[in-house]
Amino acid sequence: MDCSIVESKKYPDFFLISTTDFFYPLVEDPYLQGKVAAANVLSDMYALGVVDIDNVLMILAASRDMPADQRRIVTKLMMRGFNDLCVEAGTKVTGGQTVLNPWPIIGGVAKSITKEEDFIRPETSVAGDVIVLTKPIGTQLAVNAREWVADEQKWDQVKDLGVSIEDVDRAFKISVGSMSRLNRTGARLMHKYNAHGATDVTGFGILGHADNLALNQKAKVELRIHTLPIIKHMKILADRYKYFHLMEGYSAETSGGLMVLLPKENAQAFCDEVSRIDKWPAWIIGDVLSAKDKSCATIAPDVKVIEV
Amino acid sequence: MDCSIVESKKYPDFFLISTTDFFYPLVEDPYLQGKVAAANVLSDMYALGVVDIDNVLMILAASRDMPADQRRIVTKLMMRGFNDLCVEAGTKVTGGQTVLNPWPIIGGVAKSITKEEDFIRPETSVAGDVIVLTKPIGTQLAVNAREWVADEQKWDQVKDLGVSIEDVDRAFKISVGSMSRLNRTGARLMHKYNAHGATDVTGFGILGHADNLALNQKAKVELRIHTLPIIKHMKILADRYKYFHLMEGYSAETSGGLMVLLPKENAQAFCDEVSRIDKWPAWIIGDVLSAKDKSCATIAPDVKVIEV
Repeated sequence: MDCSIVESKKYPDFFLISTTDFFYPLVEDPYLQGKVAAANVLSDMYALGVVDIDNVLMILAASRDMPADQRRIVTKLMMRGFNDLCVEAGTKVTGGQTVLNPWPIIGGVAKSITKEEDFIRPETSVAGDVIVLTKPIGTQLAVNAREWVADEQKWDQVKDLGVSIEDVDRAFKISVGSMSRLNRTGARLMHKYNAHGATDVTGFGILGHADNLALNQKAKVELRIHTLPIIKHMKILADRYKYFHLMEGYSAETSGGLMVLLPKENAQAFCDEVSRIDKWPAWIIGDVLSAKDKSCATIAPDVKVIEV
Repeated sequence: MDCSIVESKKYPDFFLISTTDFFYPLVEDPYLQGKVAAANVLSDMYALGVVDIDNVLMILAASRDMPADQRRIVTKLMMRGFNDLCVEAGTKVTGGQTVLNPWPIIGGVAKSITKEEDFIRPETSVAGDVIVLTKPIGTQLAVNAREWVADEQKWDQVKDLGVSIEDVDRAFKISVGSMSRLNRTGARLMHKYNAHGATDVTGFGILGHADNLALNQKAKVELRIHTLPIIKHMKILADRYKYFHLMEGYSAETSGGLMVLLPKENAQAFCDEVSRIDKWPAWIIGDVLSAKDKSCATIAPDVKVIEV
């Protein structure tokens, strides 16, 4: 839903699909940050079922506020992580732009020449479909919790809840693994299992993106989420730190999973095949219902939580 | 020379040409700054003879350090200028990314689906060609001189040289007009007059870019610049403020002209037609000579200055 789809001016039937995304680092390891940034950029393309990405331009700011030698190392590692994940995706970085900035920035631009059959417009879902999600939510909380560990006062409050440092470490590792994982398998299987549209879950949270996806459908639909797969221990934190709005579906994710609308009869096979190939589960998390007035997305009052 | 040219993974004979460029504002008027930024991004495409740009993504940072109401106005005006110039170029902005940053940023990503005949690889020049330039140099000096006017101490030094405030104002206006002018006419005429390659003149200065262009040619060539069209009064300043390296050819330009390598017999007609359409002159500024060892670019010792 974040991509631009434009028809070629000179060559009818050819479409240029492109997207750009960049942000400030959120994990300490610059190499991993590079991977997360690349996975995040490419994710917009995968959400449209674009499997092959023609090329990527890198968008980079080196931090003016770092000592020069540190800046050199950090920037190099971010670039390497970004490049490595692009190679893993079967594409490559063929240019970009770098500036010096108070804050570091990492991101890029992904694009492909396509025809209509190469991508799936996120608009043909109908009542009776189900909703599938390919990564758990809760990454923002996990990244924050990891920082609390270093702050005695903050950590004292977390300890109360029965969450250990090991629990937070595990959640953080799961998050980084998840954020740096490509959504390419999902994109490929969207074609095989006749997906009716998808989006990737990022800054607006699972419900924010579900809402956008619902509004984009030609039919009037309600996306009703009945299951939330959440990184383990993050629900406890979310219940205490309500301002994350995780349980309401509005906690931002970085490089989150694909939310795919599928015919009901294909959904379990889609999930099974994603799990088999990527070694990470995918879940059926909701139903597509018909809506009377305006399309929308909702979380069922009795939503079930799966801890991952 | 700043563009990426990649062949489509799925559709042989189709190429995706793209470029990204962004920087910090350098003129005070945010609307004009938006135009300059757009002209600068598109310029990379025009240097390859790409006339029709399929779409543009905008890259934007709103300044955290501005009061919110001022930030809103400035950001809006920058976007409007950027958009307006894209419309003038016959393309449009179809997306992008905006962040909050200490410093404001404006730029974009331009791209097109092309076939080999739609663009001109900057590599087929031969001895006997001539070098054409479509905008004067000296913009960096003009932008700086405009700032000196407000600083009594600095301005006292400039007054000595016999340059008036009106002279600086005029140079600044010429610069902004030049920086916000599209290089599209040049791109179109490159095809008509059988150009052998081109580059746009930006951050490395006229000689820096000429050198890159020379090195990119299949033949061993020397690009010998015999004429420098310079914005009026900027040579006097350059002779005093030698650290700009304007006369040595290394003063950075923003959104500079196209430097086009053309068969000698076509060059004057190219210049005449650019002038007629754009109402700005273009000049034959040098010769392509054969080089013995390595390709290179030089400025002739008896270089002629044309004040514009």
